[in-house]
Amino acid sequence: MYDLVIRNGLLITAEGALDADLGISDAQIAALGLGLHGKRFIDAAGCYVIPGGVDPHVHLQMPLAGLVSTDSFRSGSVAAACGGTTTFIDFVTPGAGEPLLAALAARKAEAQGEVAIDFGLHMTVPTWHATEEQRLLEVPEVVAAGCATFKMYQAYDGVMLDDVALLRALAAVADAGGRVVLHSETGPVIDVLRADALAEGHIEPIWHEYTRPAQLEATAIHRAAELADLTGCPLFIFHVGCAESIAEIVAAHDRGIDIHGETCPQYLLLSAEEHLGGAQGALFICAPPLRDPEDQEALWRALANDELQVVSTDHCPWTRAEKTRRDFAQVPGGVPGIEARLSLVHHFGVNRGLLSLERWVQVCSTNAASWMGLTTKGRLAPGYDADVVIFDPAREKTISPATLHEAAGWTPYNGFSVFGWPRTVLLRGQMIVENEEYIGAPGDGRFVKREA
Amino acid sequence: MYDLVIRNGLLITAEGALDADLGISDAQIAALGLGLHGKRFIDAAGCYVIPGGVDPHVHLQMPLAGLVSTDSFRSGSVAAACGGTTTFIDFVTPGAGEPLLAALAARKAEAQGEVAIDFGLHMTVPTWHATEEQRLLEVPEVVAAGCATFKMYQAYDGVMLDDVALLRALAAVADAGGRVVLHSETGPVIDVLRADALAEGHIEPIWHEYTRPAQLEATAIHRAAELADLTGCPLFIFHVGCAESIAEIVAAHDRGIDIHGETCPQYLLLSAEEHLGGAQGALFICAPPLRDPEDQEALWRALANDELQVVSTDHCPWTRAEKTRRDFAQVPGGVPGIEARLSLVHHFGVNRGLLSLERWVQVCSTNAASWMGLTTKGRLAPGYDADVVIFDPAREKTISPATLHEAAGWTPYNGFSVFGWPRTVLLRGQMIVENEEYIGAPGDGRFVKREA
Amino acid sequence: MYDLVIRNGLLITAEGALDADLGISDAQIAALGLGLHGKRFIDAAGCYVIPGGVDPHVHLQMPLAGLVSTDSFRSGSVAAACGGTTTFIDFVTPGAGEPLLAALAARKAEAQGEVAIDFGLHMTVPTWHATEEQRLLEVPEVVAAGCATFKMYQAYDGVMLDDVALLRALAAVADAGGRVVLHSETGPVIDVLRADALAEGHIEPIWHEYTRPAQLEATAIHRAAELADLTGCPLFIFHVGCAESIAEIVAAHDRGIDIHGETCPQYLLLSAEEHLGGAQGALFICAPPLRDPEDQEALWRALANDELQVVSTDHCPWTRAEKTRRDFAQVPGGVPGIEARLSLVHHFGVNRGLLSLERWVQVCSTNAASWMGLTTKGRLAPGYDADVVIFDPAREKTISPATLHEAAGWTPYNGFSVFGWPRTVLLRGQMIVENEEYIGAPGDGRFVKREA
Amino acid sequence: MYDLVIRNGLLITAEGALDADLGISDAQIAALGLGLHGKRFIDAAGCYVIPGGVDPHVHLQMPLAGLVSTDSFRSGSVAAACGGTTTFIDFVTPGAGEPLLAALAARKAEAQGEVAIDFGLHMTVPTWHATEEQRLLEVPEVVAAGCATFKMYQAYDGVMLDDVALLRALAAVADAGGRVVLHSETGPVIDVLRADALAEGHIEPIWHEYTRPAQLEATAIHRAAELADLTGCPLFIFHVGCAESIAEIVAAHDRGIDIHGETCPQYLLLSAEEHLGGAQGALFICAPPLRDPEDQEALWRALANDELQVVSTDHCPWTRAEKTRRDFAQVPGGVPGIEARLSLVHHFGVNRGLLSLERWVQVCSTNAASWMGLTTKGRLAPGYDADVVIFDPAREKTISPATLHEAAGWTPYNGFSVFGWPRTVLLRGQMIVENEEYIGAPGDGRFVKREA
Repeated sequence: MYDLVIRNGLLITAEGALDADLGISDAQIAALGLGLHGKRFIDAAGCYVIPGGVDPHVHLQMPLAGLVSTDSFRSGSVAAACGGTTTFIDFVTPGAGEPLLAALAARKAEAQGEVAIDFGLHMTVPTWHATEEQRLLEVPEVVAAGCATFKMYQAYDGVMLDDVALLRALAAVADAGGRVVLHSETGPVIDVLRADALAEGHIEPIWHEYTRPAQLEATAIHRAAELADLTGCPLFIFHVGCAESIAEIVAAHDRGIDIHGETCPQYLLLSAEEHLGGAQGALFICAPPLRDPEDQEALWRALANDELQVVSTDHCPWTRAEKTRRDFAQVPGGVPGIEARLSLVHHFGVNRGLLSLERWVQVCSTNAASWMGLTTKGRLAPGYDADVVIFDPAREKTISPATLHEAAGWTPYNGFSVFGWPRTVLLRGQMIVENEEYIGAPGDGRFVKREA
Repeated sequence: MYDLVIRNGLLITAEGALDADLGISDAQIAALGLGLHGKRFIDAAGCYVIPGGVDPHVHLQMPLAGLVSTDSFRSGSVAAACGGTTTFIDFVTPGAGEPLLAALAARKAEAQGEVAIDFGLHMTVPTWHATEEQRLLEVPEVVAAGCATFKMYQAYDGVMLDDVALLRALAAVADAGGRVVLHSETGPVIDVLRADALAEGHIEPIWHEYTRPAQLEATAIHRAAELADLTGCPLFIFHVGCAESIAEIVAAHDRGIDIHGETCPQYLLLSAEEHLGGAQGALFICAPPLRDPEDQEALWRALANDELQVVSTDHCPWTRAEKTRRDFAQVPGGVPGIEARLSLVHHFGVNRGLLSLERWVQVCSTNAASWMGLTTKGRLAPGYDADVVIFDPAREKTISPATLHEAAGWTPYNGFSVFGWPRTVLLRGQMIVENEEYIGAPGDGRFVKREA
Repeated sequence: MYDLVIRNGLLITAEGALDADLGISDAQIAALGLGLHGKRFIDAAGCYVIPGGVDPHVHLQMPLAGLVSTDSFRSGSVAAACGGTTTFIDFVTPGAGEPLLAALAARKAEAQGEVAIDFGLHMTVPTWHATEEQRLLEVPEVVAAGCATFKMYQAYDGVMLDDVALLRALAAVADAGGRVVLHSETGPVIDVLRADALAEGHIEPIWHEYTRPAQLEATAIHRAAELADLTGCPLFIFHVGCAESIAEIVAAHDRGIDIHGETCPQYLLLSAEEHLGGAQGALFICAPPLRDPEDQEALWRALANDELQVVSTDHCPWTRAEKTRRDFAQVPGGVPGIEARLSLVHHFGVNRGLLSLERWVQVCSTNAASWMGLTTKGRLAPGYDADVVIFDPAREKTISPATLHEAAGWTPYNGFSVFGWPRTVLLRGQMIVENEEYIGAPGDGRFVKREA
Repeated sequence: MYDLVIRNGLLITAEGALDADLGISDAQIAALGLGLHGKRFIDAAGCYVIPGGVDPHVHLQMPLAGLVSTDSFRSGSVAAACGGTTTFIDFVTPGAGEPLLAALAARKAEAQGEVAIDFGLHMTVPTWHATEEQRLLEVPEVVAAGCATFKMYQAYDGVMLDDVALLRALAAVADAGGRVVLHSETGPVIDVLRADALAEGHIEPIWHEYTRPAQLEATAIHRAAELADLTGCPLFIFHVGCAESIAEIVAAHDRGIDIHGETCPQYLLLSAEEHLGGAQGALFICAPPLRDPEDQEALWRALANDELQVVSTDHCPWTRAEKTRRDFAQVPGGVPGIEARLSLVHHFGVNRGLLSLERWVQVCSTNAASWMGLTTKGRLAPGYDADVVIFDPAREKTISPATLHEAAGWTPYNGFSVFGWPRTVLLRGQMIVENEEYIGAPGDGRFVKREA
């Protein structure tokens, strides 16, 4: 007699579809079976039953140049929940001189009591090589504290690591048994191209893309892959946006390097000319930039062929006002997207025949859990957390700010019509979304330790 | 209260490992769960619990040039069972003028009442283009009868289809919603090379390999892939044995062609110079021939990277006496291997770190079931047939004719020492192997209809 | 004191450009030098001085299905001369039961006394494997008679060689030290596609292309390359028309196979949709068929990168009336083009920056001479035949039947405007074209023996 | 009546072999012809007549860390002459604060009056980005002064340019119409690996190779190629030593980047394990380091396939005493080799069938002249400088310090037995080597301006 049994749905796991019941007890999945007995039942007829989404790349209430990204831990996590995501991973960004564990504690404190769903934190490796060599010694403690993934940057003043710094940081993470998640663009060269463009009076948003050419994304990956190879550090490339980068990842993998990667809905669905080049171009500024329709095709193919493993959102919302600036270089980077991820990938991937149902579950949940060390998430299997989404594939919805719970007041997917939306969402067995309505409370979510 | 619960084992599915119980009722898997209640229990402590093996390429009591392959349906299927295989697929080879359904009925009749495990049959497409155009019209009936896979040959007098015949046959199968399983070698050219070699007095077994060069395997695949593309017919390449062939499969897949393939333990573990070139070379004659150690490495990599999907055996045993002939061209082709497949792939794949545990289950069971249309086999999931193997990874065994149940009296893997062997095997919930001892009866197995 | 000195021109050789005089004596090039003294002078100011063009693929007065290709040896060779070609290679097609040398003698007799320029002959290997095994024994005599190149076909009833016949023929040519020039298409499959299309009522010219898909060109090359490899026979692929075929040639070359190839102006400049699909589509039927604009780009790149070595014409003209047929399959294949070759490659290759001047000379003259065994042709070097073209790069010309000497009465390049045309042409020191006017006589040209 | 006629030899040009005389007047080649009349004759019977070698990468009397490379302009250029090289290109290395033209003038002054053969100079781009931005403004003057090629480094403290500095320098050179010649290794990472190795006590010469892995050569090329692409600057990669680097060059070329490269005899003929790992390992330290036999094969193939264009020497000799140091990192890098280049490439390339005779001439002379802007060098053609080598292919010679004119007192090719050596060498028509004996005088050579 299970606490709760979900019946009549089609279970979708990474392995395939299954016509079976799901039994839940004590916040865990207790059984997959035929004719399970429960104290309570949920009827999932006509719906898919899938593991809760895992979004490994999210920036909530992130400080940036005097601003703070629009979604708070509370609003952002509620939006995620309503979209079927039950775990997200955000970032700790240590300040100058701040010990990593102190920074971790502070960031955890910000989130706890606020979040609607479970969360983890990537530790951003600061510019240790300038003045803070001490930081690398703290890496093992950070792993021990449940943050086995370290964010590094090959671009952006203030966080960018040059080759030597990156090599040393990769080595430290490898020694501690961690994994590096990487923003891969050739930052210093991009900075020159940007300065040159601005000096020539090019301020339009499309110059954001012109000054960050795809080859500077790809060659940064090439270089990082070789450093990963020298150090034996596992590498996970964030927000892959172009065919050139996929090719470098595939080639590095073929050379025997432990490299994997993600893309995001904005790269799968939006393009530079149409969106950055449009009337509201500044809204669509994010880095790496949007690319071409050919790149979108390449990204879908890469997801299908397991050349990329994950779809995250890189959710980093700003209001229209904050996005309105004198020139493209002043616009804070990032777009919102935490809520519609599962639905967008389902509609444009599965419904167009580009991804199978199980691949959808893999890229939105199982793989992210697996690569990021979430050992109790991402699977519908006994002993795993009962994070479950009942997803109605026939539900039609037109995306707009009004239908979303995100705080930015705009969405890059405005007007997109999709079939398929989460109806009910369970977090560790507790219903937090019922019939598309959020019924949870702040603090339902917990910090989750992640293993190396 | 399930009929039977297997507990304390580590369940290995295509999705990963799982610490859970397996509940079985009414010959089906009824549940995966924690703390399941059963009328009876099996303790699988220290063991893997995996779906029963599926061997999609087996030749039992196969007539060939006046001989019959050594293992009968009875002996061969018992050997398979003892090795952890619970389903095999053998072949129907219609005689001249024989309607396909008649041939199917006859072959089924040979097996039924004899087999220890479940079985399916591939329909061999005869040399219809010479005199039997009628045969292609019968393809839809064959699919309807549960044989959705059609064996074709690009080599061997008597069964070889030339390009036009192959095109027409592929089209017929595609129209009926079937899949083609293909022996891909450039037969006519090989026949010339063989005749030339014999004419020059080269009778040694190694000339079997010299006259079947890898490039003639690869170019046959290239050609078949293009014909498959023209007809839209899904293609599954049997017994891939060399790096060149893998490259063609990968390239064809990248061109958008629906192509997949298998290899066999003999190609993964044996090599031409050592085995064909050795004192007992004739024993190792099979087609395509054994290749080089470099090819073995390439095959393991291809299995790991999902460039090949399945390990079958192409089990086709002959006695030492039958294998002893005046020249290599007289030796009946084929080697035994139905019993040790799971163990060999486990030991040389998983134990050497070349395959993960779940990849082992995929290539030995799940994928073959999936590609061959066995909709109730190959998964540990509620509703699936309770074909289950309890596999003891610590069991050490030295392979020899004495430790096997195969009838040939010799084994290509003689003296190979492996860790890991099936302890207990269930067929649709019935225990047929207990503590490595066969306890089933002839006719336990049934013919299984396979879907397109 | 040379018989004749060409001065003030820019010599273009395969090695580069050179500001020097060209001295001619006794029908040979006697010197390249500064300030050479001559009995007579030609002023080539403003012009390129290049070796006479070599067209290794021409069908003059060729019998086909009751017709004869429109240009006679006389008219066709005059047109070639006016276009700057001083050597062509046509074909001998032995009849049933006809010894090869007899056929060669007969074909030579047709041409001699008629031709305006020098010529060689490829020996077509007939369908020996059906009834004429004798023919292969004659291959060495043919080489000795100065025809070291053998034309074979993988398509077309009546001449097509299957894999075994091709293997045997390649071996015979390799043993005799010859080279095979190959029409590479998968004939039997194409025949099925054509019959099917006609049966469905598709008679329009574009179906000529639809029924000869690029992949059936490429896979034929793949197969032929492997057979060439097995026999050690050098292979030269005729009329390469698509990117897929280039890829196979490059890959085969990388595998160490002695393989090279040519393309033709029609493949470089015309496309299927525009020309075959146009109102006069039937005129443009040739095999392999015209392809896509992307293929044109790939062909130009392949010429520039030495992945293809030669531009020939496959000149095979028919009148408009002869090209007008009930369905595409009835239309005699081939287009005219012998005259404008040098000019077209100059204008669309050199003037568009796709080829260097020396690459132009290589692909139109030097390489064809080299690969086809013309040891005294194709170079501006002492001791070579004084076949010289003074080419005015500034001469503008609009191509039309009126400006050409071809007999077909139409040209695929009608209306093409080009810069650059031959002003003066010397054949072994004799001026045969002066100021764009033909001033030679029938029989100026001779049969040229070609070495292996 | 030419001043001098070389007769009875076989002329080898980039285009092919030619049985003709070579007429020389006024220091130039005046004619290639049959039966040329001369005031004097040289009988070249049995010999090849080739354009004088061009070695574009030489370090004579180069200051390094308190030492000076062993060969002076005088001794090094005499050795080059005796080996058949008639032009070399050395380097200008401006000091801190030194204007480029001043540095050029000083370096020219060192060489003039000393050199036995003609020479050019590459301008090394100093570490302008630190403190000398002025230097980049001087680039056009340097081009105008006849130094159109600029040496840059991606490694070595003091000269290394980081990505931004390299981007800016490439742009400056591109604007001035020059070409960049590049030392491509990922210097900063190598410095870490070296320091780590030394810290662990690894001082043996083989650690020179272990700390400069091939991938750090290849990824530097990848990066530089992208920067070259962004700036439109032609790139010539120096001393390519491994298969990985070739692959990057080929891939970059396929992406449309103007990139070419050279290798050197040491990379073609010597290997890390055998030579660096041998008893005299320190002698063989040069950067990039020697690699594996597989790399040698790849380099020969790349030369044959025009994936690399040039064989230079990177001649940089040190005495045994200077090469003897406490640890590998203290050993001055570089090996001698200026003299035997033509002979080594002839013997191990042409005689082993890896290169054709004309390819030998191309990689040793014509291509280097062409890529480095030596418009009067590298060809046997009227108007070109009469730099001519009469090369006896039957001359057997065992290389040793005693048979060479190099000053180092040792040679990496000691004991190598070769067939083929220069017998006679002309510099602008003047015989400087006669019957293997140097008969010239200091100052015969001149500075040669090179065009962009």
